[in-house]
Amino acid sequence: MSLISVLVPGALSMSASALAPALLEALKALLGNRVSTSESDRAQHGRDESSHTPQLPDAVCRPESTEEVSAIVKLCAINKTPIVAYGAGSSLEGALIPLQGGISIDLTGMNQILSVRPEDLDATVQAGVTRKQLNAHLRDTGLFFPIDPGADATIGGMSATRASGTNAVRYGTMRENVVNLTVVLADGRIIRTRSRAKKSSAGYDLTGIFVGSEGTLGIITEITVRLYGIPEVMAAAICAFPTVEAAIDTVIQTIQMGLPISRMELLDDRAIEAVNNYSKLDLPVAPTLFFEFAGSQSSVEEQAAIVEDLARGEGASSWRWSTDADERGKLWQARHDIHWALRAIRPGTRGWGTDVCVPISALAEVIRETRKHCAQAPFFTAMVGHVGDGNFHLSMQLDRDDPAEFELASAINDRMVHLALKLGGTCTGEHGVGIGKMKFMRAEHGDAIDVMHLIKDALDPDGIFNPGKVLPPKAA
Amino acid sequence: MSLISVLVPGALSMSASALAPALLEALKALLGNRVSTSESDRAQHGRDESSHTPQLPDAVCRPESTEEVSAIVKLCAINKTPIVAYGAGSSLEGALIPLQGGISIDLTGMNQILSVRPEDLDATVQAGVTRKQLNAHLRDTGLFFPIDPGADATIGGMSATRASGTNAVRYGTMRENVVNLTVVLADGRIIRTRSRAKKSSAGYDLTGIFVGSEGTLGIITEITVRLYGIPEVMAAAICAFPTVEAAIDTVIQTIQMGLPISRMELLDDRAIEAVNNYSKLDLPVAPTLFFEFAGSQSSVEEQAAIVEDLARGEGASSWRWSTDADERGKLWQARHDIHWALRAIRPGTRGWGTDVCVPISALAEVIRETRKHCAQAPFFTAMVGHVGDGNFHLSMQLDRDDPAEFELASAINDRMVHLALKLGGTCTGEHGVGIGKMKFMRAEHGDAIDVMHLIKDALDPDGIFNPGKVLPPKAA
Repeated sequence: MSLISVLVPGALSMSASALAPALLEALKALLGNRVSTSESDRAQHGRDESSHTPQLPDAVCRPESTEEVSAIVKLCAINKTPIVAYGAGSSLEGALIPLQGGISIDLTGMNQILSVRPEDLDATVQAGVTRKQLNAHLRDTGLFFPIDPGADATIGGMSATRASGTNAVRYGTMRENVVNLTVVLADGRIIRTRSRAKKSSAGYDLTGIFVGSEGTLGIITEITVRLYGIPEVMAAAICAFPTVEAAIDTVIQTIQMGLPISRMELLDDRAIEAVNNYSKLDLPVAPTLFFEFAGSQSSVEEQAAIVEDLARGEGASSWRWSTDADERGKLWQARHDIHWALRAIRPGTRGWGTDVCVPISALAEVIRETRKHCAQAPFFTAMVGHVGDGNFHLSMQLDRDDPAEFELASAINDRMVHLALKLGGTCTGEHGVGIGKMKFMRAEHGDAIDVMHLIKDALDPDGIFNPGKVLPPKAA
Repeated sequence: MSLISVLVPGALSMSASALAPALLEALKALLGNRVSTSESDRAQHGRDESSHTPQLPDAVCRPESTEEVSAIVKLCAINKTPIVAYGAGSSLEGALIPLQGGISIDLTGMNQILSVRPEDLDATVQAGVTRKQLNAHLRDTGLFFPIDPGADATIGGMSATRASGTNAVRYGTMRENVVNLTVVLADGRIIRTRSRAKKSSAGYDLTGIFVGSEGTLGIITEITVRLYGIPEVMAAAICAFPTVEAAIDTVIQTIQMGLPISRMELLDDRAIEAVNNYSKLDLPVAPTLFFEFAGSQSSVEEQAAIVEDLARGEGASSWRWSTDADERGKLWQARHDIHWALRAIRPGTRGWGTDVCVPISALAEVIRETRKHCAQAPFFTAMVGHVGDGNFHLSMQLDRDDPAEFELASAINDRMVHLALKLGGTCTGEHGVGIGKMKFMRAEHGDAIDVMHLIKDALDPDGIFNPGKVLPPKAA
């Protein structure tokens, strides 16, 4: 127990560890110095990348094997002590914040790549392996793991939140790229959700139930993921449009033609403005699409030529493209830098990043209406979209400590989400529910929420896994 | 109640309807003449395409809306009367056989295509719509629904069994192609599992839980599926190999290169022999791969040239290919006719078709070992594989009424499945569990079976949905 937590016992961010002494002793016997109640450890594990209020776990455990996770869960189950899994800490909706204290299981020590099978195009890793670590390991095989949520997240965390990112338009999300999982259940039992076969009709899709469950149904400790051959040739292209609608129409036509585009990203004019300032670029301040093509030389050239035609048909100007690695990097620099460009707009504030996903036919309307609403805001807003999937992020550089700004940002977010739901979309395409999107879950799912509760109660009857997340309260 | 069922009350296949009179009256009030207890209706709904023993439902109901399905389920729930969903009747593992009698809900009257949204590349259909019906409807849109299990199955049935087929290697299975479902739960409530957004991180993957549940968790009444643009150019190719291993090595290399092959099918030498006889062909009697390429003219040509190179490198002879529709049909005729060719080998018997799916690195071994075992059989056997997915079918033309033949076929099947499991595979890649594969489920899934039971008990506490299927008994 730290000095500060003794001195300020009631403060939210520095409260004393409330862990039962017997549990702490048992955890120490199990893990030695890999269990910690230090102020700094608890603080690190009490916050994520979002602006949700941090909250401290009572202790941080650092297991190194599935068996140790199982032993921790068994110990916690006795006292019904809450357990939250922690990976890279890059959650954007508070998924890892220990709302009711308890144990934060930090899985980053489980960072072994257990096997890579090039013939089967799969690899099995421990939950704490990050995507960049896996890809560095794969470098000599000619294979790669494509899912890229931006942050160097752990594969376990990406599985738990059903992550995706820029190249989901070609490769799908974690839903499509997790082959199987090893999961520790609420009673400490260890299961494997599925075989390694590419397809199976043998029973219920348990993999799918744990992918995206945000640690509320079990602790994912090992993951088998799909791998892909690194394309022979890659090309990047960039292109500005007169309107967001024109950009989206280009995207719709591209997808309908079945072109295997790797990435297809939209920055709106505000985002371009931000990144021009930050990265000293001189891009036309207009809605801009960033493309990545991959395949053989001739197929890449063919794809690029077709998309250029489509884009020009929609009034695009300034089509630039290249297959050269350096040139590609320059063309995409604005997209790569946008995260930092937006953060730099109002230093010292954390901002608010939210995402929705809609059927692509509704994308222009949701963006247009949200931009109208944003025009009233005294803070900077911009949009960055994985538009091929109908998914976009609204970034609001507000001062969360200003109640008026916070209220307006909440209203913008609420209106955007409800419009997305009305048009057949979802309250989050890839950030997850965590704390922030819980209030929209019943509007999105209706009575299906009750089915989710039935599953939660069946798998975690005492509610020890990540309590207070994902599911709104049961209907009265 | 038919005359025959009165006269032979004890006979399995002609037993009297045991439906509670009050339930029958209530169903008649609801559905009028769309509820039937006639001998012929019950017989039709008591059998599938497999050789599993037929068993009669007590009545057949033909609802025309989700609301009627809900009303039927509510009535059945009162008496805990079993309910089995029935589509095209093309199940291969007895999934639709009403083991405990009760109601067979025939969904073929729910055959409305509710909406097609070309911009969003999706369509919503009632469960009784067949895949050919949907594709005929789509003809003028330039889009198609790719999943093709062979039979003209209903989209509802295909969802319930997580069907796939020849072009899963490119387009995935029903798991990847169902966007959302409307499902009637065991208490009659109606839920929609998910929005229409292409991706979502908003809560548990209920779609995935119902896809492949074979009617044991709920009745699927509406399905939104993904559509794809019809490729500009298609080409077919066929090519014989010295060994099964050489054919599979070609497939592995093709997949590792990331070529977007549409279909990649293997017929072993026995299958070629059968189809040469049946269709009066003169193909070399050798393991043979059938390819389908799709894309632009140049990409199709490029793909075909690469695969030809790979195949010749593995000792292939007789590479033939064409983009002409007639020629393509001729090249693929053997593959198209194989089902009938195998059936014709021993007229009057039903044979036994079983499937497994393994990581592709294990495919050659499972095929080789199974062929060795089959060599002892006095009946004809052949293998047909969706080899790009590691999935293959073993077809055994036995006389099921001959106990010795049946015993040997069971032994071949058992050994093949257990070898598949040992090598990281699954007991069924696409046929489903039904009755036939239940005995392998615990060997495949271990304690994960208990999680499936938890989900089953949570969603269907009285066990009215398709009792006796998918899940083996709970552990003692």
